[in-house]
Order: sequence, then C-alpha cells, then structure tokens
Amino acid sequence: MTEELKTGGQKGYLRIATEEAFATQEQLDAILRLVKEGRADKGTVSLWGFYGTSPSERTTYIRERLLDLGPLRIEAMDAAGIDKAVLALTSPGVQSLHDIEEAKGIASRANDHLAAACEKHPDRFFGMTAICPQDPEWSVTELKRGKEELGFHGVQVNSHTHGHYLDEERFDPILRACAEMDIPLYIHPQGPPDPMIGGMVEAGLEGAIFGFAVETSYHALRLLTTGVFDRYPSLQLALGHGCEGLPFWIDRFDYMFNAGVRSKRYPRLKPLEHGLHHYLRNNVWATNSGLPSPASIKLLIDVMGEDRVMHAMDYPYQYVPDEVRLLDAMDLPAEVMKKFYQSNAERLFKL
Amino acid sequence: MTEELKTGGQKGYLRIATEEAFATQEQLDAILRLVKEGRADKGTVSLWGFYGTSPSERTTYIRERLLDLGPLRIEAMDAAGIDKAVLALTSPGVQSLHDIEEAKGIASRANDHLAAACEKHPDRFFGMTAICPQDPEWSVTELKRGKEELGFHGVQVNSHTHGHYLDEERFDPILRACAEMDIPLYIHPQGPPDPMIGGMVEAGLEGAIFGFAVETSYHALRLLTTGVFDRYPSLQLALGHGCEGLPFWIDRFDYMFNAGVRSKRYPRLKPLEHGLHHYLRNNVWATNSGLPSPASIKLLIDVMGEDRVMHAMDYPYQYVPDEVRLLDAMDLPAEVMKKFYQSNAERLFKL
Repeated sequence: MTEELKTGGQKGYLRIATEEAFATQEQLDAILRLVKEGRADKGTVSLWGFYGTSPSERTTYIRERLLDLGPLRIEAMDAAGIDKAVLALTSPGVQSLHDIEEAKGIASRANDHLAAACEKHPDRFFGMTAICPQDPEWSVTELKRGKEELGFHGVQVNSHTHGHYLDEERFDPILRACAEMDIPLYIHPQGPPDPMIGGMVEAGLEGAIFGFAVETSYHALRLLTTGVFDRYPSLQLALGHGCEGLPFWIDRFDYMFNAGVRSKRYPRLKPLEHGLHHYLRNNVWATNSGLPSPASIKLLIDVMGEDRVMHAMDYPYQYVPDEVRLLDAMDLPAEVMKKFYQSNAERLFKL
Repeated sequence: MTEELKTGGQKGYLRIATEEAFATQEQLDAILRLVKEGRADKGTVSLWGFYGTSPSERTTYIRERLLDLGPLRIEAMDAAGIDKAVLALTSPGVQSLHDIEEAKGIASRANDHLAAACEKHPDRFFGMTAICPQDPEWSVTELKRGKEELGFHGVQVNSHTHGHYLDEERFDPILRACAEMDIPLYIHPQGPPDPMIGGMVEAGLEGAIFGFAVETSYHALRLLTTGVFDRYPSLQLALGHGCEGLPFWIDRFDYMFNAGVRSKRYPRLKPLEHGLHHYLRNNVWATNSGLPSPASIKLLIDVMGEDRVMHAMDYPYQYVPDEVRLLDAMDLPAEVMKKFYQSNAERLFKL
C-alpha cells in the first residue's frame, strides 16, 4: 500500500536534499592512516575507526555509497523521490589531518572530482566547496575557485579544526570571504574535540546520536554570541539536524546571554547589535538532516519562519525513503511544503 | 494594561512551579572555600566564583533570594501568581565537595531546614531531598528519611558527581531506592565536568546558556541508553529546561542508537526492551524551567503527551512574572493548561 516515490514534482514540489555526503578514497585513506598511527583525535578514531574498517552491513553500505558519485547515488535518489542533492565532502573533511599540504591537496582534488560529477548530472548534483581551515588564506582562494570556476553553491566546514572554531580571529578571512562572495557556510558536525569529549566515546554517545549536536551547536553559538553577524550581516549560516537544536533553545540562550552581558560575567561576551533571535531569523538556515520529525520541523518553522527551513536526507548515513513519505504527509500548507522541500534551498544555494 | 497575577485559580488552574532553588549559607561557604582553594572543578569555579562573589545586581539579588525560605519567596510567588513551589537545594548541591562527611552534614541540615520551611508554609512549599551521591548508601538512608520523616516529594541530583553519572554501578542503590520508594528523580544541571568542558568557560558558554544542557542531556541519555528503565520500569525521571532538549532529538537518538546496536559499534550499547520513545513517554517528565517558550512547550507535549509536561519558574535565577502571563496565553485547550500548570505536578510529586 506504500506509494511509490517519484521525482519531478509528484506532490507539487521538487524534493531537494541539502546535506548529502560523499568521500574520496584518498580522504578516507589519509584519515585511516592517522587513526592507525594514533594521531587522530578520539572523535575521529571512533568515527572512522568504525566506518572505515567495520565489516558490518551498515558500514559496508555507507563506505560504498560515500565513494560513489554516479549511478548508485542517482538510483537511490530516484527511489526516494529526491530530485536534487547538495553534496559535500564527508565529515571531518580534511580538518583532522596534520599535514596541511596533504590536506589541501585532498580537499582540492575532492572539489575537482565533485565538480566533474556535477557537470555530468547538472540537474541532480550541486556541490559545496571543501576547504582546509588549517590554512585560511588558501581556503579563501579555494572558495573563490569553488564558486567561480567549479560552480559550487556553498562551503561545508565540519565544525572544529583541531579544537578551533570559526569565531577565532585566525579564521576571519574565511568568514569574510563567505560574506563578500555570498557563499552559504554550512557547518556540519564531527565529534567534539578531545578536551570536550569526556567519557562520551565509552558511553557510545560521542557521534551522531549526541556528541555531534553538542559540538556543532557549540560552534554555532560561539558565532552567534561574539558579534560575527554584526561584523558580517550578510553572512548566511546553514545548520543541519534541526538547526542543531538552536531554535528549541533560543529563548534560554537569549535570556542567559543578556543576563551574562549585563553582569559582565564573561570578558568575551559583549553587547550585540541585536537579540540572538534576530541572528537566528536573519543569518541562520536549518535543515532537517537526521531529524525526519514533523514536531521538530514545525518548531523550526515556528521559531525561524517558513523561509529558512529546508529538507535534507543525510544520505548515505540515513537513507530511509519512508522518511520522505512521512514528511510528505506533514500537516503544513502546500506553499510551506514547497518552501521546505524546494524553494528555500533554491534561494539559499542559488540552484 | 498588564493583568495582575493572582494565586488561587485565577485562570482555572493553580500554578505550581516545580524547579525552584534555595541554598544554605554553609553550603555556599563550603563551595566558595573549594573555589578559593583551587579544589573545585571549572564549572563550579565559574558558577559560584560568580554567583558567590560578584557584586552585580543580578548576583546580589540571587544570593539573597536563594537563602530565603520565608517572606521574600512567598511575596515573589504571590506577585507571579505561583501557588506552590517544589524546592530543592541549588546546584551543585553538595556534589562538588570532596570531604564526604562535611557534604553529608550540609545536605542533611539543608533537608532539615527545608522541612521546617515546608511545615511553616504547608500550602506553598514542597521539598525535594538533597543527597550526597558520593556516598550512595547514606543517600539511600537520607532518601528514606526525606520521604518518611520530612515529607519530601522527590530528590534532586545536580547531574554529575565529580564526573560520574547515575548509570554507573556504584549509584545503583540510589536508582533502586527511587524506584522502590516511588521517589521522582529530578536531574538538575550543573556545568560539565572538566574532561568535557573544553573551552566553554572562556567562551562564556559553560553555564545555563549552554553547558548545563549538554551536561544534563548527556546524563539523561546515559540513563536512557543503558537499560536503567528496563531494570527499574517504575523509575520516574524529571528533567527541566524543556526536558533538556531530549524530545526535540528523540527520533535521532532512537535511529542512531539502533544503528549502533545493530552494528555492534559500542560494547556499552546493547538492545533494550523498548525503543527510546517508550522510555521518554513512560519514565520521563519535562518541566519548562528556563524555557518559557510556547513553541518548545508545544513540542514537548506533542512528543511526550500532555500528561508529562509541567511548569517551572527557576526562581530566583529566572524570576520573570511576565513569563507567567506569556504561558497563561498559550494556545492550548483549558484541560491541557491545567495539566501543565497543576495536575501533572500534583500527580508526579503527590502534592
């Protein structure tokens, strides 16, 4: 009795999936080498020690699917009724690597590889640039190449870079480039850095189940609370996994931020031009990757407005066509459904 | 034009506030001594180094109000239309202390002090027992005394105890006692332990704005994912601050938990008798302390059902009578409003 999912506007909208992952073999090889040499952080050891080597059905499937930018992926998209995928180099990109020349080479070749796939499937695949935040100036050049030569639509940063965050001064050129070149900045999770991971690995909770959201919401909140969007009012930040929970918490963030600023509790926190809600509603976009949850999606729309919440699938990590059926059936007006599945992504990523 | 807030059923329900804090002077003295001696963890140093010593308007007010279990508190409740308050020794209770005999003495005397105040205001104040998880057996005895001799209605644990969590075997007597004596377990935040706090203090984010929720949702998720509620199906866990976000995330928790169990990723995670949604809807209760947010409260009710979501004010940390007006105006049926403000708390805490 299950309805077949089709592309092409079956329900009055195209379905765009905005947080879809691919890998290159040399990326995985480099990360696994770090893991084997004991030079990776605990989050990477857990993530890629598992996905890179486990013989389980899940990991074998995911490895195969990550490396494919061709028929397997198109077939999966067709079967799930996904018209377009916005693709990015899977977490942690090259951000865990220590050899910066190697990291830049891998990111750059991943970008070329992705651009070729997008050229081959111009109606289905849309790329985001991979950068190497370890070298901000190089990353700016690669952002420019990604946008102007490779036709990419955003940049994905996989949260921390060796425990450092984009609000730190060293990364300012990257934020400036995104703002000036009008490149959406998608911050994707990875595990928390070692000084923040505590016993999460032993508890089995440092990954996508929990630690990812801790890490990424922390990153986003660092940006929101330190004036980044006052410096760059046009900067647009996309967050997956239900905007990493930020809209659920925004009233508490705002109350406690203002209480802290008024009492001068933290030297780092200073008055901002706007309340935190303002940035959430003017500089942040949400996707529902990994969270195919009508109640949570409605909260996002309620808090952020219907123009900033987008669909994502998180293929191949969470490829569940039934989730598309569930979301198709959400109790939302037709025009909001079209914004969610199609037009918001078209607007942000200029598809 | 603001409507005066009154107690006594002004809107068709009594208003019960379920996460209200008090302190004793010897508790604050002991914590501040640790801070001064450099023996407190970073979260405690930040929290009580600030609240205990800052001359700001906010902290002066909070210190005075925490120490009062009399007229100031009753007056504040009257002015905010709060009929009843469920009270607990403020975070971190005695859990940061190293001298266990001292800690037990402080907890025990705080319980006596609270019981006396409840006896003086039997229609307004309702207590939760303070325990010292550093000594689980003593805590069991104090739980029994709290329930049977002092007439208390629950127990508040301020999340980790020196970096340890209630799912660890050493604390099993406490969980068993709560289940067997039908004592609701309220897990209240404190800052994350040092191995999990990373750069949060420097970022100004380790406290109520963010780190509290990381710490407490982590604690709750450890309980949910390790069979605690299979061992003790009658155990009832209360979480503040919008159930610390768990209902927003529950689909992702459940998907990733099951994916991890199936692929045997973590030795610690084993199949449970039920999906995680089951425990959320049968063993967990939410309060909206610090989150006076209709959108978030509606999500809680949507996901957990209308019988498990309760009102809280977080006095004196967040004493904002206008929040009561805002929540009075929530677009929810009258019978749901009564459950939220009154009957759910009456049922859980047996008021």
